[in-house]
Amino acid sequence: MNDKQKKPQKLKARLPRGFVDRSAADIRAVNEMTAKIREVYEHYGFDPVETPLFEYTDALGKFLPDADRPNEGVFSLQDDDEQWMSLRYDLTAPLARHVAENFNEIQLPYRTYRAGYVFRNEKPGPGRFRQFMQFDADTVGAPGVQADAEMCMMMADTLEALGIKRGDYVIRVNNRKVLDGVLEAIGLGGDDKAAQRLNVLRAIDKLDKFGPEGVALLLGPGRKDESGDFTKGAGLNEEQIAIITMMFKPTVISWSQAVPGDIATIDVEMGEPWRFAPLKAQFIAMGAEASSTFNEGGDELNTMSALFSAAGYGPDRIKIDPSVVRGLEYYTGPVYEAELLFDVTNEKGEKVVFGSVGGGGRYDGLVSRFMGQPVPATGFSIGVSRLMTALKNLGKLGQSEVIEPVLVTVMDGDVEAMGRYQRITQELRQAGIRAEMYQGNWKKFGNQLKYADRRGCPVAIIQGGDERADGVVQIKDLIEGKRLSGEIEDNASWREARVAQETVEEADLVAKVKEILAAQAEDRRRGADDYYEEYDRNQVGSTNDHE
Amino acid sequence: MNDKQKKPQKLKARLPRGFVDRSAADIRAVNEMTAKIREVYEHYGFDPVETPLFEYTDALGKFLPDADRPNEGVFSLQDDDEQWMSLRYDLTAPLARHVAENFNEIQLPYRTYRAGYVFRNEKPGPGRFRQFMQFDADTVGAPGVQADAEMCMMMADTLEALGIKRGDYVIRVNNRKVLDGVLEAIGLGGDDKAAQRLNVLRAIDKLDKFGPEGVALLLGPGRKDESGDFTKGAGLNEEQIAIITMMFKPTVISWSQAVPGDIATIDVEMGEPWRFAPLKAQFIAMGAEASSTFNEGGDELNTMSALFSAAGYGPDRIKIDPSVVRGLEYYTGPVYEAELLFDVTNEKGEKVVFGSVGGGGRYDGLVSRFMGQPVPATGFSIGVSRLMTALKNLGKLGQSEVIEPVLVTVMDGDVEAMGRYQRITQELRQAGIRAEMYQGNWKKFGNQLKYADRRGCPVAIIQGGDERADGVVQIKDLIEGKRLSGEIEDNASWREARVAQETVEEADLVAKVKEILAAQAEDRRRGADDYYEEYDRNQVGSTNDHE
Repeated sequence: MNDKQKKPQKLKARLPRGFVDRSAADIRAVNEMTAKIREVYEHYGFDPVETPLFEYTDALGKFLPDADRPNEGVFSLQDDDEQWMSLRYDLTAPLARHVAENFNEIQLPYRTYRAGYVFRNEKPGPGRFRQFMQFDADTVGAPGVQADAEMCMMMADTLEALGIKRGDYVIRVNNRKVLDGVLEAIGLGGDDKAAQRLNVLRAIDKLDKFGPEGVALLLGPGRKDESGDFTKGAGLNEEQIAIITMMFKPTVISWSQAVPGDIATIDVEMGEPWRFAPLKAQFIAMGAEASSTFNEGGDELNTMSALFSAAGYGPDRIKIDPSVVRGLEYYTGPVYEAELLFDVTNEKGEKVVFGSVGGGGRYDGLVSRFMGQPVPATGFSIGVSRLMTALKNLGKLGQSEVIEPVLVTVMDGDVEAMGRYQRITQELRQAGIRAEMYQGNWKKFGNQLKYADRRGCPVAIIQGGDERADGVVQIKDLIEGKRLSGEIEDNASWREARVAQETVEEADLVAKVKEILAAQAEDRRRGADDYYEEYDRNQVGSTNDHE
Repeated sequence: MNDKQKKPQKLKARLPRGFVDRSAADIRAVNEMTAKIREVYEHYGFDPVETPLFEYTDALGKFLPDADRPNEGVFSLQDDDEQWMSLRYDLTAPLARHVAENFNEIQLPYRTYRAGYVFRNEKPGPGRFRQFMQFDADTVGAPGVQADAEMCMMMADTLEALGIKRGDYVIRVNNRKVLDGVLEAIGLGGDDKAAQRLNVLRAIDKLDKFGPEGVALLLGPGRKDESGDFTKGAGLNEEQIAIITMMFKPTVISWSQAVPGDIATIDVEMGEPWRFAPLKAQFIAMGAEASSTFNEGGDELNTMSALFSAAGYGPDRIKIDPSVVRGLEYYTGPVYEAELLFDVTNEKGEKVVFGSVGGGGRYDGLVSRFMGQPVPATGFSIGVSRLMTALKNLGKLGQSEVIEPVLVTVMDGDVEAMGRYQRITQELRQAGIRAEMYQGNWKKFGNQLKYADRRGCPVAIIQGGDERADGVVQIKDLIEGKRLSGEIEDNASWREARVAQETVEEADLVAKVKEILAAQAEDRRRGADDYYEEYDRNQVGSTNDHE
């Protein structure tokens, strides 16, 4: 080891890659969003339950979609008794452990929801973090696909409760048994081919990312991406690929874009629920054999389709789509995915469909791994940050206004003066007004007003020695002050100017501050009205450049 | 390795030691509590900010009170680039990193709050977990003790906002500089004695746990606990111990229990703010030398005492107490602790004062470790589970009632019937009623009613083939049914019995369910009134056995 290597580095403030700090706006938006989600789940009869972030590694199992890192994509460490513990990578595997551990106390069906952080030890990328929040709902002890159907409807209701319009989202539904049946038919059945099956499923799962041609390459010889990185293919032959491709050919991006010939759309266009028969007919016509698994999956899709229809959830909200896979290995039956259909601009400047914000499926084997008896279950997960990004794009979050605190400035640092500022601050707070006394170095008064300005404080309170002697305070309306100094556009048309600074008796302070805050709120309201009126005028006389 | 060792174990559902699952009641109680805390902090002008759970190990530093485990009490692992990362052990060290990393964008003073999980790799014990939630507030860039004083007042206001009566809590305040001055005076100054100083501080910090005699042993030769485990002492002589003991002698458990001779109480009993002078006089009288650090700490305590007094926070809410230490190593000035004063019964059946639910202090060195310039800061942390336990003891949580869902039972499993049940469930939900369709194995109808009973469902909806043909449903009032069957006490005095089951047209279902739920809510309200009336009667004629 040479001297350079031994030299101690200066302590550097930085986060490990793939982790981020969260801003106030972000936290408030997530709280607003999760409160709405929680309300829907509670309405559906779900109760909260939570598990800790650590589990024994063996209890979590290895079900992650991407096993391209050592440690299987999971953060793990050894406890002092040598047992391996891991940070949870989702909220489903820990729920399975929780149910198995408390099986005698739990009343089935067990309907619960939870929000929490999960961790993936993966290569971080843009928008891809190693810690992120999921919001899950699950029904454990529910053998029938009516439970899966309920999950799909709850996802649809949740998206609408968040303000996403019908037509701007769709819940896509498939069944792993159908996929398994297809894999059997092309000769990939049996325990010894589990790994290859998984590769094929994961290739299909990339459909929205790489398109049908990309998936065909991944199913066959392999695919080279733009950077030249080569992903090994599943090695299927053309005939095998043709059968798989047929299965996801019916995919349509949105209902209105459906081509009449698309198999999935045939019956629905006629106002009937989706049916498995036409798909199965084409499958057999291609020479593939329909196994009992394949047929069972088809029957389950038929049932779900009928339930959606009966409950009034048409294909504009929930639709059967045989190309849905879901990456996690533990799914055993219905799988479902919530997709947002509006366009956003990606990091390359291209317009792309927003895509998946969550999904789930049936995992009948996950609890029974611990039990020696079948415990059927189904549930889904919402990616909280992704959904929040979508809602921000739609302008559906951050509507609730947060008023910054009134700033009580500090002119003198002696105990007597400080005590007075402190008391004024407490009086404002006790009157329900958000307030703070300046806590930085008070000696530079300019810094205090700069702080108030940057922070967006609505009002500043000033009391120097003379004012203190007279028992008065100066109150500065900082919003009005800004307006009068011309820093914001002239809105005088909708009201007369207020006085931006005045001196009042200490006893009248709270009442006067309340009055100013109320006037500012009124201005904001009128300003918003003006904005919308302006907007409406533009809409009426809109030309192409407004579209 | 022999065969027995190699034999694979059956997968067991269990949590690693020191981790727990959280129940619905617990989650709802914490949400209710943190919402109230958040409201106070927002009122004081604090905004939320959050950091991830991982930090680089060096960025966290080693400041934990108990270094009795390898790994310094922290969960750590190596990233794939060989760098060590740790799970945060508190919310303060990560905040310091956040501020240093974003120093140019952050407007100082920076006033923020955050709730989140922290992790300690410690030996778990009763009520001692390896993952627990803290709720912190901090002001960074605040050099004066007025910022520390504000923190103390905010803690007091928070406890009162949560329903803890004045007199049932106290915020105790000290200053590390005073403690450091004492340590200097007994010959423990200088960098080379840092470890010994820390041992002495940690011994003093055990005052509420072991009492003055126990602390004296920890300061001197060492202490053997009931189980026979020996804790090595700090090795001080009797003279040194006497000076330290004098410093925390003034401790009083609650204001009303103060003995007039207690130094800390002398001036306050006379209606004056606490002053440092009497304590200092006694210190010097014992032959100890008052260093500049000691005097500076004393002056700061005097200032804080005056500020509390000016803002109307008397010693019944916040009091100076020179025995307060706080275990974390990074504190540099004022330290403060929130203590609940009412008695609870511990695991040994003894009545003990509930004790600390949080605290904090000034940490001027924590941000500047990264910066090369001073960045003064102060803040505190609330132990969320501990405070929740206290509030539960006081009956201050869980007041908001959660109504369990209406259960739509399943009599027939064909798609047509299922679709009908599904539609009924959705209609109830759309009318704002919490509802669920039975998702377990529907074939045993008894299980459905048992589920409704255990779950506490208020109403069950039943529709068999005949009813379906007639377009009607049966509605069962499960609460009334229980009452009529005599399973709950007879409350007929305050109302007439309702009909526990009736048949209505499908179209009238929602209205009828609403009617039943409203009647049940009215019963609960009257029941609660009756309960309080009964309670009041008992209070008026109370005898000793009611106290």
